[in-house]
Amino acid sequence: MTYFKNIGKIAFEGKGSDNPLAFKHYNPQEVVLGKTMEEHLRFAVAYWHTFTGTGSDPFGVGTAVRGWDSANEMDQAKMRVEANFEFLSKLGVPYYCFHDRDVAPEGSTLAETNKNLDVIADLLEQGMKDTGAKLLWNTANMFTNPRFVHGAGTTSNADVFAYAGAQLKKSLEVGKRLGAENYVFWGGREGYDTLLNTDMALELDNLARLFHMAVAYSKEIGFGAQFLIEPKPKEPTKHQYDFDAATTISFLQKYDLKDYFKLNLEANHATLAGHTFEHEIRVAAINGMLGSLDANQGDLLLGWDTDEFPTDIVSTTLTMFEVLKAGGIGKGGINFDAKVRRASFEDQDLFLAHIAGMDTYAWGLKAAAKLIEENVIDGFVNNRYRSFKEGIGAEIVAGRATLASLEQYALQNNAITNESGRLERIKLQLNEIIFSV
Amino acid sequence: MTYFKNIGKIAFEGKGSDNPLAFKHYNPQEVVLGKTMEEHLRFAVAYWHTFTGTGSDPFGVGTAVRGWDSANEMDQAKMRVEANFEFLSKLGVPYYCFHDRDVAPEGSTLAETNKNLDVIADLLEQGMKDTGAKLLWNTANMFTNPRFVHGAGTTSNADVFAYAGAQLKKSLEVGKRLGAENYVFWGGREGYDTLLNTDMALELDNLARLFHMAVAYSKEIGFGAQFLIEPKPKEPTKHQYDFDAATTISFLQKYDLKDYFKLNLEANHATLAGHTFEHEIRVAAINGMLGSLDANQGDLLLGWDTDEFPTDIVSTTLTMFEVLKAGGIGKGGINFDAKVRRASFEDQDLFLAHIAGMDTYAWGLKAAAKLIEENVIDGFVNNRYRSFKEGIGAEIVAGRATLASLEQYALQNNAITNESGRLERIKLQLNEIIFSV
Amino acid sequence: MTYFKNIGKIAFEGKGSDNPLAFKHYNPQEVVLGKTMEEHLRFAVAYWHTFTGTGSDPFGVGTAVRGWDSANEMDQAKMRVEANFEFLSKLGVPYYCFHDRDVAPEGSTLAETNKNLDVIADLLEQGMKDTGAKLLWNTANMFTNPRFVHGAGTTSNADVFAYAGAQLKKSLEVGKRLGAENYVFWGGREGYDTLLNTDMALELDNLARLFHMAVAYSKEIGFGAQFLIEPKPKEPTKHQYDFDAATTISFLQKYDLKDYFKLNLEANHATLAGHTFEHEIRVAAINGMLGSLDANQGDLLLGWDTDEFPTDIVSTTLTMFEVLKAGGIGKGGINFDAKVRRASFEDQDLFLAHIAGMDTYAWGLKAAAKLIEENVIDGFVNNRYRSFKEGIGAEIVAGRATLASLEQYALQNNAITNESGRLERIKLQLNEIIFSV
Amino acid sequence: MTYFKNIGKIAFEGKGSDNPLAFKHYNPQEVVLGKTMEEHLRFAVAYWHTFTGTGSDPFGVGTAVRGWDSANEMDQAKMRVEANFEFLSKLGVPYYCFHDRDVAPEGSTLAETNKNLDVIADLLEQGMKDTGAKLLWNTANMFTNPRFVHGAGTTSNADVFAYAGAQLKKSLEVGKRLGAENYVFWGGREGYDTLLNTDMALELDNLARLFHMAVAYSKEIGFGAQFLIEPKPKEPTKHQYDFDAATTISFLQKYDLKDYFKLNLEANHATLAGHTFEHEIRVAAINGMLGSLDANQGDLLLGWDTDEFPTDIVSTTLTMFEVLKAGGIGKGGINFDAKVRRASFEDQDLFLAHIAGMDTYAWGLKAAAKLIEENVIDGFVNNRYRSFKEGIGAEIVAGRATLASLEQYALQNNAITNESGRLERIKLQLNEIIFSV
Repeated sequence: MTYFKNIGKIAFEGKGSDNPLAFKHYNPQEVVLGKTMEEHLRFAVAYWHTFTGTGSDPFGVGTAVRGWDSANEMDQAKMRVEANFEFLSKLGVPYYCFHDRDVAPEGSTLAETNKNLDVIADLLEQGMKDTGAKLLWNTANMFTNPRFVHGAGTTSNADVFAYAGAQLKKSLEVGKRLGAENYVFWGGREGYDTLLNTDMALELDNLARLFHMAVAYSKEIGFGAQFLIEPKPKEPTKHQYDFDAATTISFLQKYDLKDYFKLNLEANHATLAGHTFEHEIRVAAINGMLGSLDANQGDLLLGWDTDEFPTDIVSTTLTMFEVLKAGGIGKGGINFDAKVRRASFEDQDLFLAHIAGMDTYAWGLKAAAKLIEENVIDGFVNNRYRSFKEGIGAEIVAGRATLASLEQYALQNNAITNESGRLERIKLQLNEIIFSV
Repeated sequence: MTYFKNIGKIAFEGKGSDNPLAFKHYNPQEVVLGKTMEEHLRFAVAYWHTFTGTGSDPFGVGTAVRGWDSANEMDQAKMRVEANFEFLSKLGVPYYCFHDRDVAPEGSTLAETNKNLDVIADLLEQGMKDTGAKLLWNTANMFTNPRFVHGAGTTSNADVFAYAGAQLKKSLEVGKRLGAENYVFWGGREGYDTLLNTDMALELDNLARLFHMAVAYSKEIGFGAQFLIEPKPKEPTKHQYDFDAATTISFLQKYDLKDYFKLNLEANHATLAGHTFEHEIRVAAINGMLGSLDANQGDLLLGWDTDEFPTDIVSTTLTMFEVLKAGGIGKGGINFDAKVRRASFEDQDLFLAHIAGMDTYAWGLKAAAKLIEENVIDGFVNNRYRSFKEGIGAEIVAGRATLASLEQYALQNNAITNESGRLERIKLQLNEIIFSV
Repeated sequence: MTYFKNIGKIAFEGKGSDNPLAFKHYNPQEVVLGKTMEEHLRFAVAYWHTFTGTGSDPFGVGTAVRGWDSANEMDQAKMRVEANFEFLSKLGVPYYCFHDRDVAPEGSTLAETNKNLDVIADLLEQGMKDTGAKLLWNTANMFTNPRFVHGAGTTSNADVFAYAGAQLKKSLEVGKRLGAENYVFWGGREGYDTLLNTDMALELDNLARLFHMAVAYSKEIGFGAQFLIEPKPKEPTKHQYDFDAATTISFLQKYDLKDYFKLNLEANHATLAGHTFEHEIRVAAINGMLGSLDANQGDLLLGWDTDEFPTDIVSTTLTMFEVLKAGGIGKGGINFDAKVRRASFEDQDLFLAHIAGMDTYAWGLKAAAKLIEENVIDGFVNNRYRSFKEGIGAEIVAGRATLASLEQYALQNNAITNESGRLERIKLQLNEIIFSV
Repeated sequence: MTYFKNIGKIAFEGKGSDNPLAFKHYNPQEVVLGKTMEEHLRFAVAYWHTFTGTGSDPFGVGTAVRGWDSANEMDQAKMRVEANFEFLSKLGVPYYCFHDRDVAPEGSTLAETNKNLDVIADLLEQGMKDTGAKLLWNTANMFTNPRFVHGAGTTSNADVFAYAGAQLKKSLEVGKRLGAENYVFWGGREGYDTLLNTDMALELDNLARLFHMAVAYSKEIGFGAQFLIEPKPKEPTKHQYDFDAATTISFLQKYDLKDYFKLNLEANHATLAGHTFEHEIRVAAINGMLGSLDANQGDLLLGWDTDEFPTDIVSTTLTMFEVLKAGGIGKGGINFDAKVRRASFEDQDLFLAHIAGMDTYAWGLKAAAKLIEENVIDGFVNNRYRSFKEGIGAEIVAGRATLASLEQYALQNNAITNESGRLERIKLQLNEIIFSV
């Protein structure tokens, strides 16, 4: 069945094209810094927002009008699989991502739920064979069902923890079967609403226990996916344990998990935590923890996760600059964890929104490449820190300086001269570069 | 000389007293949970806000009217020393805290600056002998002077790093001489304004190098103070490297510094980072990193560090509850890193504000003790997590469970029952307890 | 049918009672400043949160376990009516509030929807007769249904505007029939997501047109309710037109609607707008626009409307202080627009949460009364502004001063003396008063 | 004397120029939509940030290195006048703006202060004659001096109010003498820190009295400047009375001042209030209150007024789009109320930062013009609201519809169809337009 009837394959038409259903910047085979755009960007579509999302919000029911609306639950699930592969093909996106409960409904028992998932996994496997689509990552939804009201790995109820473990086991098996290149842990309910009723120490210990079990089981079954944790500071809980990159790294260090995990960073989660996206990527990169990206953007005047499609070119440029400097995104990719606005309820908006996101990222990639090729940022930065390459600076970096040797130096060096940081100039230069590509 | 002429020794008069210059809750010798209030709270006065602060803000010059206003710089410094000990004595506070540049002005060279500091250190030493006052902690101000415009330990200029090292060396020596029980590092300029001109990896490496040098020198001279890092997320820089407790712990772990440092946590810094104060304390405590507290409060509708005196009893109760549960504040203390409002510019306000802060903390201590004695919180929490003490829960905690064993359990356990978290009830109970003491 | 089987009538037991299902502060017949608590507080239960709410959030389905869960839609509606009156009776709350779509489901046409509403209105009318419960206010839900995706009074689609007008007409008729003392307008979708596709001028003109129609129709049918607008700054839209009290007053002034409307102010909406609740009440009061209150509280570290039950006694004291100073709440009341947390999913939590809110408000009322009786705040304030009661100050207030006369005065008045604002002292005093009642 | 020795007249070199000291977009004589860029943009330099600012912040003293640093106070004031005109000439900016206390220091009495101001006004007058520079607006600084600790027009001290009146009188006289085209009121201390010690009603009444006096005196002396109020929500006070555009309009309406004032809107103040800049401009424009703009930008991850130079092209495009649609900025202009970062402390940064701001605004102007010429936004918007131009929509707009007529229409109109708002598509289109100019 065809779900997006009036829409054909999205083609690259280049800048100046008036066709809203064409790419102006994303040209998959165009080579940038020695790799194709497709290889750099490794785009993925998020199943939940695109095929399961309805446009509902806390003040209103869904608005989306979709071809599978009227079917029963299991038939809807099957239709969404077809829609997924049609969408990926038409858009020219190589990857998709899903939660177990996005693709298949819960049954009345865990056994039945697993059976539902198997039915859909068959269809997904077949669809991937038929179309060449690949699974960037899958994950387990352990937050929507009421049983997870107090958490999954951090629940106060051991029965729920056990259920979560069982669900995770199945989810890892599905990931292996579908060749998932990564496996993501986002702890939707792993946090607290109030410390007054919370044993934080036990909850974090338990969370680490669950992760160790996942590592062990993954080895056992030979599932080679990169494990990723996705930080978020708050929402739905008041405090999410995986607050941001630094917090998550701290957790992984403490529990001897750092070798088994990297980070899946999201733009909107970064800003909710008070950081820029490029900050989070830099923190991950200098700790060897950059795994994958959830591409979206928030509204910084709003205090919740708006998951908008990325259209801020300055931000995507800085994002891709960090990625390129980190040596690329590796096994990860750029997953559009973004939803069309409630008022963009037509099928066509799904395409328009992804085109907006993909073009904005492709533009950012080209601009970032130019920043590197022309040595705009690094040239400035390297010059700025040059004093650490000789004399007392080199002593410091080499670990040979002591407070006493520094004092000796400083006592005779009364005229210190600093140089301007040139922030305003750099920002204008950045604009010029971005808009010259 | 007497600076606070119309004010005598502040006495405890108990609840119901109309005297604004008396304590209603803070009774230093009153025993709570086996220790005196004085031992629990270990209050300190912050030299910078109380004796050097003027009430200036970015839109206005100082308003404070002080007895030392008209003197020259070095005489002012000497007068403030006298005022400090008079203030501590009248208020009955055992400790004070200072930055090197609070107590003595910079000279035209580092040598002259150090000399100024020695002159004042003599006076401080004498004052401490005379009055019995003690130094909770000292620190180096490496952020006010223009030389630190790009940072101190994280500067782009090796000459500045050297100066910082020299300043730190002197500051450690002064700390040792005055018997400081702790030594604090707050990185006022250790952060960045934009990643575009910043080498974050080098800056963090250098910061760790400076800390290692401090550890080494401190050992060398036999300075036994507990080292403390004070997290703050932003302001003055856009991003401060010591963002919050978790970030700082992550840094200390990475650079093998965790054994030498604990945290000095501040209420207003916690809320600027998006956390409650009690959250930050809990995070530190469960990582063995609780060092000392900077007591103040922010205005959560404002986005900068307002450093108000603490008057929120619910917050001080939860703070002291965390401290008591962590086994007390140890070598640390409760330092009023708080300033009178710009409109509270009279000398008397310095007393009234400290009385407000001390009474609010004493009240919080008594309420926290009652929460513990009556087992209000822990009783509820222990019951809530009881399922981890037997059966499958005990298996999980003991590390014997696997995903497979959990699946086996979960497949036959279809009826999971959760219990209410009772948040609203607990909050009302908390109020009742607080206001019954 | 009985829905809350294990819960009896909530009684006043006073401070010190251990019974969680009793009032410790709210004693309806206790006289405070010449009126009973019941007359002062005029509590109302919010139908939507208490009887229609499920505990769902954007990341999870509902958790609440209710006696009417399994029934069909119209039967559920009928059962909720019974539950409502049982709840009001047991809790001893005199008022309730509802949206049209809370109480009765939509049908497939407007006619059928109106019919459903009539069926339920019959039951509500009967219930009110039987129990003595009263309707504080009703309102029309013009935000949940997808048709309102672009707004109701501010929609881009005239058909939707017409529907809204029709829905509003019916809602006013129901209000009249049930003797609603007020009628509320909260514009859930009256705002915009982006200015890029919005004609703000037309939308605001249209909104005013709808309000004028409502005024005219209300006169026509003799509906004597006080009309209220409820400000909210954002959520669900990016910008809600009725941002805060001042913005709403500006709108009402511009469109000659000020004589027909007052404001229904909500605590959590105030803080989302960057204000304290007491600020919004003061702004309304000094403009003669204080209508009614939606009692709840937000979490200032979170950026969305959390609608928590009020447990902050300082806040309720300041709220009631403003209300008392404004001469009372008039025809309005205190409606608990608050929901139990997702984790407080048991029936009992509905009672515990309302008890927490009612006790916190009763406590605040008593404290506010004491502030007034002891002239704590006003005494200070009146003294602070005393210079405007004589001399040049009196000239200014009388409108007789000019810039020239002020210059003449100022040129010869070179020594101006200000007095401390004493903020820290006042805050501690406030605590002492609150906790002495 | 020459202050900016190594810098010549900034010329337009067009896109692609590598010269950091040249314009790439701002070409004053280039015609856009029938007017020159210079006429559209009416740029002004802010005296305070550029000539009086030092780069100090609450945690550090000034860093700026300026040619007048070593002079005494009155000589500095004279040197800054020279520097101002040199700067304006070299930059090619036609206007400047100042507070009275930026240009001349306070004396020991008001009379002496006025005399200082007269001395400088002579120099400013001469400089304007010599160079052709014009005064966009002047204003009175009634917030820096400690006397204004409790406010100026809203002070609790009538002596201070009198002083403010006198200062305002002099300031209006200086404005008249220098031909100021506008006169701005920004109430730096017109707000409160706590309601607990504040008589808001009296304070607002008094503020209105001061404004009425200013209107009267301005008429008396024939000062034809447009009066402007500048909204800001907070900082330095917790709540500034002129919170945002809507609040300020409400105030002006209430006190019959609306005919005499327009608004001076600032980008960073808008975002601190929770609004976009374009929102504030739209609100002003549809109320006939758009006066002038303070161009800068904030950092939305920081909670204070950062006053950065504008470099966000999307924002300047939307700003200029609103301005163009409102018929232009009239007597107002675009004043760079922006400061170089603390780390940009060299003279050259003053030029680089203004070039960044001017180029970003020129770019935005061209993009906005193209949006209008190509009817991108308005075409979409007009089509979107087309249903209000005929049938029931036209009835509504004409004021002929009633709730009854709407009900009649709606009851027979069961199939309502909405159209997508197309937000994602519009945002990408906006990018394409911006980057095609």
